[in-house]
Amino acid sequence: MQLGMVGLGRMGGNIVRRLLAAGHHCVAYDRDPAPGAELAKEGAQAVADLPAMVAALQAPRAIWVMLPAGAATEAALVTLAGLLSPGDVLIDGGNSMWKDSIRRGAMLREKGLHFLDIGTSGGVWGLSRGYCLMIGGEAEVVARLDPLFQALVPGKDSAPPTPGYAGDPRAEQGYVHAGPNGAGHFTKMIHNGIEYGMMQAFAEGLDILHHADSPALPAEHRLTLNLPEITEAWRRGSVVASWLLDLTAQALAQDPKLEGFSGHVSDSGEGRWTVDAAVASAVQAPVLAAALFARFASRDEDRFSGKVLSAQRKGFGGHLEAKKG
Amino acid sequence: MQLGMVGLGRMGGNIVRRLLAAGHHCVAYDRDPAPGAELAKEGAQAVADLPAMVAALQAPRAIWVMLPAGAATEAALVTLAGLLSPGDVLIDGGNSMWKDSIRRGAMLREKGLHFLDIGTSGGVWGLSRGYCLMIGGEAEVVARLDPLFQALVPGKDSAPPTPGYAGDPRAEQGYVHAGPNGAGHFTKMIHNGIEYGMMQAFAEGLDILHHADSPALPAEHRLTLNLPEITEAWRRGSVVASWLLDLTAQALAQDPKLEGFSGHVSDSGEGRWTVDAAVASAVQAPVLAAALFARFASRDEDRFSGKVLSAQRKGFGGHLEAKKG
Amino acid sequence: MQLGMVGLGRMGGNIVRRLLAAGHHCVAYDRDPAPGAELAKEGAQAVADLPAMVAALQAPRAIWVMLPAGAATEAALVTLAGLLSPGDVLIDGGNSMWKDSIRRGAMLREKGLHFLDIGTSGGVWGLSRGYCLMIGGEAEVVARLDPLFQALVPGKDSAPPTPGYAGDPRAEQGYVHAGPNGAGHFTKMIHNGIEYGMMQAFAEGLDILHHADSPALPAEHRLTLNLPEITEAWRRGSVVASWLLDLTAQALAQDPKLEGFSGHVSDSGEGRWTVDAAVASAVQAPVLAAALFARFASRDEDRFSGKVLSAQRKGFGGHLEAKKG
Amino acid sequence: MQLGMVGLGRMGGNIVRRLLAAGHHCVAYDRDPAPGAELAKEGAQAVADLPAMVAALQAPRAIWVMLPAGAATEAALVTLAGLLSPGDVLIDGGNSMWKDSIRRGAMLREKGLHFLDIGTSGGVWGLSRGYCLMIGGEAEVVARLDPLFQALVPGKDSAPPTPGYAGDPRAEQGYVHAGPNGAGHFTKMIHNGIEYGMMQAFAEGLDILHHADSPALPAEHRLTLNLPEITEAWRRGSVVASWLLDLTAQALAQDPKLEGFSGHVSDSGEGRWTVDAAVASAVQAPVLAAALFARFASRDEDRFSGKVLSAQRKGFGGHLEAKKG
Repeated sequence: MQLGMVGLGRMGGNIVRRLLAAGHHCVAYDRDPAPGAELAKEGAQAVADLPAMVAALQAPRAIWVMLPAGAATEAALVTLAGLLSPGDVLIDGGNSMWKDSIRRGAMLREKGLHFLDIGTSGGVWGLSRGYCLMIGGEAEVVARLDPLFQALVPGKDSAPPTPGYAGDPRAEQGYVHAGPNGAGHFTKMIHNGIEYGMMQAFAEGLDILHHADSPALPAEHRLTLNLPEITEAWRRGSVVASWLLDLTAQALAQDPKLEGFSGHVSDSGEGRWTVDAAVASAVQAPVLAAALFARFASRDEDRFSGKVLSAQRKGFGGHLEAKKG
Repeated sequence: MQLGMVGLGRMGGNIVRRLLAAGHHCVAYDRDPAPGAELAKEGAQAVADLPAMVAALQAPRAIWVMLPAGAATEAALVTLAGLLSPGDVLIDGGNSMWKDSIRRGAMLREKGLHFLDIGTSGGVWGLSRGYCLMIGGEAEVVARLDPLFQALVPGKDSAPPTPGYAGDPRAEQGYVHAGPNGAGHFTKMIHNGIEYGMMQAFAEGLDILHHADSPALPAEHRLTLNLPEITEAWRRGSVVASWLLDLTAQALAQDPKLEGFSGHVSDSGEGRWTVDAAVASAVQAPVLAAALFARFASRDEDRFSGKVLSAQRKGFGGHLEAKKG
Repeated sequence: MQLGMVGLGRMGGNIVRRLLAAGHHCVAYDRDPAPGAELAKEGAQAVADLPAMVAALQAPRAIWVMLPAGAATEAALVTLAGLLSPGDVLIDGGNSMWKDSIRRGAMLREKGLHFLDIGTSGGVWGLSRGYCLMIGGEAEVVARLDPLFQALVPGKDSAPPTPGYAGDPRAEQGYVHAGPNGAGHFTKMIHNGIEYGMMQAFAEGLDILHHADSPALPAEHRLTLNLPEITEAWRRGSVVASWLLDLTAQALAQDPKLEGFSGHVSDSGEGRWTVDAAVASAVQAPVLAAALFARFASRDEDRFSGKVLSAQRKGFGGHLEAKKG
Repeated sequence: MQLGMVGLGRMGGNIVRRLLAAGHHCVAYDRDPAPGAELAKEGAQAVADLPAMVAALQAPRAIWVMLPAGAATEAALVTLAGLLSPGDVLIDGGNSMWKDSIRRGAMLREKGLHFLDIGTSGGVWGLSRGYCLMIGGEAEVVARLDPLFQALVPGKDSAPPTPGYAGDPRAEQGYVHAGPNGAGHFTKMIHNGIEYGMMQAFAEGLDILHHADSPALPAEHRLTLNLPEITEAWRRGSVVASWLLDLTAQALAQDPKLEGFSGHVSDSGEGRWTVDAAVASAVQAPVLAAALFARFASRDEDRFSGKVLSAQRKGFGGHLEAKKG
């Protein structure tokens, strides 16, 4: 099949590579010409602008936009909507807010265009492992593009079968048609929310292991623990075995005290939107919220809330937690 | 009445002053002679060591130990237990762990001595406002020392009566005989646990107000808010009116951005023991635990848990949150 | 002064009463004629519809809408906007979302009208204690209506002065001009968020006290505690002294085990919006979020998250937490 | 090698089976004779009591106790300590508290015996997948029993190698010599603490998916999502891929709404001790604590904390959340 790819960063570029490897034809565009030139050497057709991409594809076209969520994605979708013909498909494979995808689906439908919102998980490993895709949109459109998805996902053999599973066989390949527009990005948002919680669970547990020799503990209770060995052992047979554990063990193997990191952690939209979604539907999500707030706290240089506590403590108890003079 | 006071720091010294003002006789001891000499000018009888204190009091004696929890309190109680006579009363008014108070009560009972564990709230304001006392021990002993407690507590007029209250009238003065040994310090522990939660609630709310003009927000949603005025207004008629709010408003009136504080906040035993008590009795205490962890986070210079998150993010997504080189 | 009041429920009706008591003239309207008739006996001028209210007031008019947030408030403001004349003031004193207040302020400004968003705290006690008001809007309009606000707030004598306070004297009366439109409801939202956290702190602490005699604890550590007496004692001299504690002590005095309550707790918009605001400005708010989630949990009859945990436990450990057959 | 196994429940029995399959000689005892008779058919030597077990093993003996933590384990270890000879090894493979293991190690060392505390993960799947073992004790003793551990663990091929790993090769087999006595159970405790956090992360995320069609949401934002398909798809290529996800997908495949479960979730010691350990070493662990409290909440039939909130709401706002009459 043919696919146009707009945005040739780490994700977009590797998706093109995986499609090329499966024999598909890819038309590639990025405002920076370098990655397109690189992909051209690998078999892609690089184009200089969006009109050239539209011209290079046969109708009904499929164009995948893989850009930062927000203004960049909005601009590309709007521009392409003006260039495409009825029946063409636009795909947003980035980390867009699911409500935007509902809105964009309706907007494109009015122009006779189809829209798929695809949450894409796999990161830098997707090229070799395959990508997990969470797709929102019309069933017929998903079916039409199935050959592309088949090329991108890890495939059935990448995990043992689930006894009793009787749903859509696509899920056993590593992708899911989650529902109408919005459902793909909603599902990806929750995936990332869970990811935040799992990551923080590991982070806290390892932090306790790391402090098991704290001088604040009674001497007879202090333990000096080897985190690279412990995480490596957990990878086999334990309940916490997971890809995140594999990555954690790998990082600790290479830097046992993780001294190469600052400890300041960024967050992206999905973790925040997950908390908003929990609040909106009155679902308790204390772990997902705590994981998000831990990231905020890691970057809180101002410490205003701590200052309020210190001011109160000084007020009632005369405790001094003042700045060093 | 007579009372011996061991430990003449901020709390012990002011308790003596409040008792003196009510006409009681106080024998005062501290390993540093200075505060005893000062109190002697105000009417107390300063002594040079514990045997002298015991000699200066008539049986049945009452001696109040007001020392840091842990080794200092244990040593003073053990020493005094060897000096006192059956029927005498030992009081631990400090922030001891309630299980220690159960153990010490049993230990002293074997020697024919009485023991009261008294949680004391009021901080630096207790001298003028009176202290709230939470007492564990035998009813007869509490009754015997009632004149002392009456002198220490704020008294009935310090708050409007509670409609329908029909319990022990002591509570309407500001003290409670909470139960047998351990009950006083258990009740004080929970008091402080609640205090942590309330403080953190204010800290978080004010932090959001403080960041209401954050450049991360859409320009049309940014608000510049005056925290000294807002907290002052809340002191009258609002649901969050409280002594902690009074102290917060006062701190903000004097230092609107609280620039005099570092934001690193200490914690004492009670906040920790409260979480342990919740866990032991399978009571959900997410707010009290979160308040404690926020203090831990405020002092977490190592940020190991953040480093774990960054290492994972680098592992799956190639995100770099490395140290500045 | 003159004020029109739209919505004569518990809050609206009592605000009218407090204004009447101060000698102001109130024109009152509710779609149910009963409360207007009642207020007419107390000196208000009841009208049958909004045009009649507008006709009954002299320009520049001031009309206070006190209706449920959302559709009811929106409808009343839109209708009144069509009836009023340039220079008139519309007030939304309900619990509206602050972003709506920003939007409405702009919408009314286009019509030459003024808008104040006023967060109103005080509940059923406001009639006697006065209301704490958090006001967003133009300074001149706040100044013009100052006599009304002065009649509503608790007044300077209702709390001791804050040493060093040098801000707007209004705050010392119990109200604050927080900023432009939106600032009033934003400030009220945070007030309620803090309220949620404080309430939950008390709830958790008291829950631990309530379970101090749990048979799950070692026999020598069990304590039977008297919550009415403990909360009554805390009202005087302790750090947790607060209006919420007063109300808690009162409830426990009348129903020591709170058997009259189901334990299912509602939440209103402000608690949710506070969490959303924290997330939007990247402020850590673990206590405020945990307090909100505890309310969600109290109403979670489905327990789907618990079912997921049980399914996982059965999966790896063979643990059975199945429904009783 | 020879091993004595005391306690032939699900874990103990399957450990024996896995050792038998590897050609080791097992002497098996349980106070219930049935499981021993069953294992005898599979090649084990069943004995009638502990003295018979000691007699059946050649010195230096190794006896593995696999009993519920607490009194049962303590009694078995004390009895065996009186029967064994210097140089023999006692193993506690259960879920004991790590401080107990430090104490027991010291107690047994005084008798010339060796002690290993082994945290054992793998549950009902260990027989086929192998067990992950976390071992505390002397290095020589671990080395001596290595053939047994090699038979129990999943082995190196059960996971791809970790690039750069250069620690003890045992960890690449699925077991770790974590340190001296206590280190095995400490490491297992943290493993389970992390497990709680990961489980709760999935539970919350799936709960939000489950409520994505809530009537409380605006109609245009409601989504009906297929949880069996989504979790199946996530198993391949996504960041949350994990054994817990495999089990979750399996449960949902068989019971899409998990209607076979009550939603009341038990907790065992390790989750609680993890929170205590975090508190003791001043490590922030909001996610691990929240995961524990969510289990407490799932079993909270009394809802006393909710009643406190309702009582306060009634107090200030007249809100009624009373029991249905």
